[in-house]
Amino acid sequence: MPLVPERLLLGPGPSPVEPRVARAMTAPQLSHLDPALMSMLDAIRDRLAKVFRAGEGAFTFAVSGTGTAGMETAVANLVRPGHRAVVIVTGYFGDRLSQILARYGATVSRVHVEWGRACAPAELESFLKAMSPPPDIVAMVHAETSTGVLNPVAELCRLASAEGAMTIVDCVTSLGAHPVDVAAWGADAVFSCTQKGLGAPSGLAPITFSKRALQFAEESAAELPGYAGRRSFYFDVRLLKDYWLNRKYHHTICAPLVYALDEALEIVLQEGLEERWNRHRENHLALVEALSPLGMDLLPPPDERLWSLNAVKIPDGVDDAGTRKQLLDRFGIEIGAGLGPLAGRIWRVGLMGYGSSRDNVATLTAALGSLLSPQINSGRRAYQ
Amino acid sequence: MPLVPERLLLGPGPSPVEPRVARAMTAPQLSHLDPALMSMLDAIRDRLAKVFRAGEGAFTFAVSGTGTAGMETAVANLVRPGHRAVVIVTGYFGDRLSQILARYGATVSRVHVEWGRACAPAELESFLKAMSPPPDIVAMVHAETSTGVLNPVAELCRLASAEGAMTIVDCVTSLGAHPVDVAAWGADAVFSCTQKGLGAPSGLAPITFSKRALQFAEESAAELPGYAGRRSFYFDVRLLKDYWLNRKYHHTICAPLVYALDEALEIVLQEGLEERWNRHRENHLALVEALSPLGMDLLPPPDERLWSLNAVKIPDGVDDAGTRKQLLDRFGIEIGAGLGPLAGRIWRVGLMGYGSSRDNVATLTAALGSLLSPQINSGRRAYQ
Repeated sequence: MPLVPERLLLGPGPSPVEPRVARAMTAPQLSHLDPALMSMLDAIRDRLAKVFRAGEGAFTFAVSGTGTAGMETAVANLVRPGHRAVVIVTGYFGDRLSQILARYGATVSRVHVEWGRACAPAELESFLKAMSPPPDIVAMVHAETSTGVLNPVAELCRLASAEGAMTIVDCVTSLGAHPVDVAAWGADAVFSCTQKGLGAPSGLAPITFSKRALQFAEESAAELPGYAGRRSFYFDVRLLKDYWLNRKYHHTICAPLVYALDEALEIVLQEGLEERWNRHRENHLALVEALSPLGMDLLPPPDERLWSLNAVKIPDGVDDAGTRKQLLDRFGIEIGAGLGPLAGRIWRVGLMGYGSSRDNVATLTAALGSLLSPQINSGRRAYQ
Repeated sequence: MPLVPERLLLGPGPSPVEPRVARAMTAPQLSHLDPALMSMLDAIRDRLAKVFRAGEGAFTFAVSGTGTAGMETAVANLVRPGHRAVVIVTGYFGDRLSQILARYGATVSRVHVEWGRACAPAELESFLKAMSPPPDIVAMVHAETSTGVLNPVAELCRLASAEGAMTIVDCVTSLGAHPVDVAAWGADAVFSCTQKGLGAPSGLAPITFSKRALQFAEESAAELPGYAGRRSFYFDVRLLKDYWLNRKYHHTICAPLVYALDEALEIVLQEGLEERWNRHRENHLALVEALSPLGMDLLPPPDERLWSLNAVKIPDGVDDAGTRKQLLDRFGIEIGAGLGPLAGRIWRVGLMGYGSSRDNVATLTAALGSLLSPQINSGRRAYQ
C-alpha cells in the first residue's frame, strides 16, 4: 500500500475518526454469527435507539452500507409501486431522495425550496392542502449537506402525519451533532451514517423504523407474494431484523466497522447528547465569528444554519478550486466544494463529531487567512 | 467496547485477516474524493482485473457492501422485468440468486441439483434445449459455500452463451483460492467478497462487468427513462462507474476497507495466483488426509470438492452443536454449521486466504480428535 497522507478532514464528511474508535477497529476479527459479536450488535441497537430517541416498538439497527444505503433501505421498505410521494427538496440530498423514490415506483411530487433556505412549514402545509388524495409518503432531509441548512422536521413531520402519510427523514448530517428526536417527530423511517456526527469511518448506516413502518413492511410482503414486491434483498428490513434479532444469517457484517460504531456510540453517550449538541453549536458559532474578519459569511440565514456543516460564501475574486487545492497540499486540510447550483459559490466546512473543536476552527481560519489575504488584496487592486 | 475474544476463523467465512492487511487499516483516514484515495481505487481496479482475469473492455471495481451486495449489483444491472432467467441451484446461494432475480422481476426457472453435487454440463444442456425461446440470463454459483461443491462454470457459461444468454457467476468462495478466469469463461457479471480467499475483512464486494453487460446497462437505462427501470440507486453500475472512473460523488466509500482490499490484493499478486491456488489445494488435501484417521470424510465426490471450504460429514453419534460450541469455547476455533437440508449432517470447515495453512489443519484436527474420540467411543459402547 502507498504512504497515506495525514489529512485534517473539515469537509462535508467523512469527519476525523475518534482515536478511541481507530484503536477499537484493531481488535481481533469475529465472524458475523459469533456470540461475542452478536452481543455487540445488541449493545449497538440499544445505544442507537438512545441517540435517535426512537419510539416504543421501533426497530433500530445499522445497514451494511453507507448513508445512501440507509436512504435506499428506508425507501425500499416503505414504498410500493404506485405510491404517491411528496419530497421536500432543499438541495442535493432531497433530490437524491426523490430519485430513489421514483426508482422504487413512487409517483413523486417535489416541494421545491431555494437552495440555501429551509422549507417553511406553511409551504408544505399549502402543498399538502392542494393534493387530493393525500400522499402515502412525505420524505425530507433534516440537515441538507449541500446547502448547510437545517429543516424544521418536527413541524414538517407533524403536518405529514396529520394527512395520514408515512414520513422518511434523512439525518445523515445531523445525528450526533444536532437534536434528533424520532419519537417526538413521529417519523417512520429515519437514517444516518457513521462518518459525520458519530466520529467513525463510513460503511454502516444507522436506521430506525417505527412500529407502524415495520407493520407496513410485513403486510406489504404478505399482499405481494413471491417477491413480486420487487424489493431489494440486501435492504429488506424483514430479513435484516431476522439477522439482528434472531441471529439468522443474511449477510456477513464487517466486524471492524461494528467495533468502530460500538465504540463511537459509547463515546457519544459518555459525552452526553445535549453536551455534544452544544459543543457543535459553540464551535459553529466560533467559526462564524472567526470568518467575519476575513470578510466571509455563511449562505443560509442565521436561524436556518447547520452546526455540523457550514456553507461558507466564497469571497469575490477568490479562486475556488485553487484555494482548496492549496489548503490540501500546503496544510493537509480538506474542505468541500459546492454542489450543483452552488458550485463555485460556496465552500462546505464540516465541524462534525471529533472534528468539532476550537483548535480546528483556529487552524482552518489561520490557513484560510494566509491563503486569502493576497488573493482578495490583488482582486481589490485589479478593480481600483 | 467489551473485550473481544481471539478466534481461529475456520468457518465458511470470514477467514483470518492477513496481519499486513490489519496493519494497513490503521492508516490515516482519507475522504472518498481525496486524490490519494482515488489513486488507490485505480490500483484496486487494476489488481482486481488481474485476480478475476477480466476481459477487454470490462469494468472491474468493488461495491460498498458484502458479497450479497455484489450479487444484487449483478442482478440489478442485468435484469429487466419480464426477463427469463435460468438459475443453477446446487445449494443455499444458488437459491439466493434465484430469489434476488425474482425480486428484480425475472421469471425464474431453476435447474435443481442434489445438495452436495455439482451441476453436470449435460444437465444444463438438456434444460436449455427444452426452453423456447432461450433464456435472457443464466446464473450460477462457482463455489457453493453451503455444500462445499465446485461447479464447472467454464462449460456452463459456454452452454449459456451458445444460447445467447448473459451469464452471472457467484465467485464469493472461489476468488483468490480457486482458478477464476472470467475472460475465458466469457461471463458477463462476476462478483465476490473480500473476507474469504482474499484475506481482508468483509464490507466490499469485488465485481466485474463485461463490455457487453455494461452496454446492456446503458441501453436499458435509455429505453426505460425517468427511473422507470426501478433499479437500485446504490447498486447502479452507471453511477458507480462515474464515481470509480470520473471521481463523481455517489457514496462515501470506507477508507479503511479500501486500504484493506488494496493491501490484500497486493499480497495475492506477490504470492502469485497459481501458487495461491496450489496452496489452497494442498491444504485441502492435507485436511482430508488428517480427518481420515478420525473416521471423517467429505460430502462431495473428490473431483467436485472445493479447496476453500470443506463439507465434512458429521460422524454418527456426534453432537453437532455441542462439538462446535466446545471447539469455540475451549479452543477458540470457529467452524460452520450445515445449512438447510444439510443442517446437522455436515460441518463447514474453511481453509481460505491467510487461513489456508498446514498449521491450521493440524490445530483443528488435534482439537477435533480430542473432542470426538470420547463421543464416538461412547456411541459405540451404547450400541454394543
